Amino acid sequence: MNETIKTLKNHRSFRSYLDKDVPEELLNEMIESSQAAPSWINGQQVTVIAVKDPARKQKLAELCGNQAHIKEAPVFLIFCADFYRAQLAAEKENVTLEALDDIDALLVGAADVGLAMGNAIAAAESSGLGIVPIGGIRRNPLEVIELLELPKYVLPISGLCVGYGAEDPGQKPRLPKEAVYHQESYNSDLQKTINTYDETYSEYMKKRTNGEKDTTWSEAVTSFYKQTYYPSIAQMVEQQGFTCKNIKKL
Amino acid sequence: MNETIKTLKNHRSFRSYLDKDVPEELLNEMIESSQAAPSWINGQQVTVIAVKDPARKQKLAELCGNQAHIKEAPVFLIFCADFYRAQLAAEKENVTLEALDDIDALLVGAADVGLAMGNAIAAAESSGLGIVPIGGIRRNPLEVIELLELPKYVLPISGLCVGYGAEDPGQKPRLPKEAVYHQESYNSDLQKTINTYDETYSEYMKKRTNGEKDTTWSEAVTSFYKQTYYPSIAQMVEQQGFTCKNIKKL
Repeated sequence: MNETIKTLKNHRSFRSYLDKDVPEELLNEMIESSQAAPSWINGQQVTVIAVKDPARKQKLAELCGNQAHIKEAPVFLIFCADFYRAQLAAEKENVTLEALDDIDALLVGAADVGLAMGNAIAAAESSGLGIVPIGGIRRNPLEVIELLELPKYVLPISGLCVGYGAEDPGQKPRLPKEAVYHQESYNSDLQKTINTYDETYSEYMKKRTNGEKDTTWSEAVTSFYKQTYYPSIAQMVEQQGFTCKNIKKL
Repeated sequence: MNETIKTLKNHRSFRSYLDKDVPEELLNEMIESSQAAPSWINGQQVTVIAVKDPARKQKLAELCGNQAHIKEAPVFLIFCADFYRAQLAAEKENVTLEALDDIDALLVGAADVGLAMGNAIAAAESSGLGIVPIGGIRRNPLEVIELLELPKYVLPISGLCVGYGAEDPGQKPRLPKEAVYHQESYNSDLQKTINTYDETYSEYMKKRTNGEKDTTWSEAVTSFYKQTYYPSIAQMVEQQGFTCKNIKKL
């Protein structure tokens, strides 16, 4: 196993940070690594905004659902799906971009964000930094858009706290490989595998909480997904110019 | 710059491969690296299907728009956004997952795919393998879903050719950093930066095509996005169970 694979497999989510700045050079390497990631048609549909100002971090911490680690981390990055630059290109070429009305723009933008953010994470973790992605950036997305002055065709997808981790939080066990990796076609006979994972997960939760919680993965996931968790997502998407016309016509 | 960052910044897209198998051990490291990536609420909304059978690769090459490198690569991985396991959990817990009707499920699934695929790419490239992501897997998505027997709540997002690269294709220049990286808030004054990049990109295209093409980035991107490029995406999304109810109500 080489160093890169060791880094990738060693990922963990830090939610507590030392009072120590992230060197500008490392932040630079994270951004350049992000930019080197592949993107759909080389469209580079990703923008990163770095927030270091304490008052702005505090405000973002609140908007993300009072997540104190956002304020504690010396740097909070916001990864956005971005077709604003494509729109500028369209104005230059004097054409209209019909593709932005298609739901595929959302899949492309979000996947590109994942690729870019994954690279930033690997660059950070390989340099001794600790991180945690913050999907809660979509909890109050209209306020986030206003605060960060995001133009049309830009959507906040995930935040990323970056700093020097204070305590090693350990790794959560993952689904057994056979649940997520198939040969030639999908094997949908997965209930047993999920039951096994539920036991592993419950044991892990017991250890981590000194016996207080024994939640299974199935319980954790369904308790989150049983309701619409962030009510403004559709409004955010439409306000930012992604009309999803083809979905509406179905 | 450490080895991991070197690997990330050295990414390039190989579309031609040596006639040499990918060792099972390396493929394993790629999948385990994927699994180690962070995911939204630890839901692990990603599935990878490995296709090695030549006839199936041939069929997929056709469905992706006659991309010969899919057949040539010894392994073709398909990365899917996957809430099928969440649905199995819901059946176990006897609840209904309202969140799957929300457009956010698509953002989450696609971003998770990007994170997982990014890790697989870094693992591959750090081990001397060459790759190219294939968004064309969404060109004929209904046929891909049938061929790979994807159940409800599973969407193919990107393919990934994996093998030993035959010729170094070089790196495409990226947008200037100031176009994609902002401090504290979005700086939307980007037209000049895009003009500069258009020149760089055009020069690169001229060199790469021995003077035959001098396309700018603005021309390339707008010529692709000026029409709906894959007409069945909305149908795929709805067929697989993502109703996007909240978008339809707007």
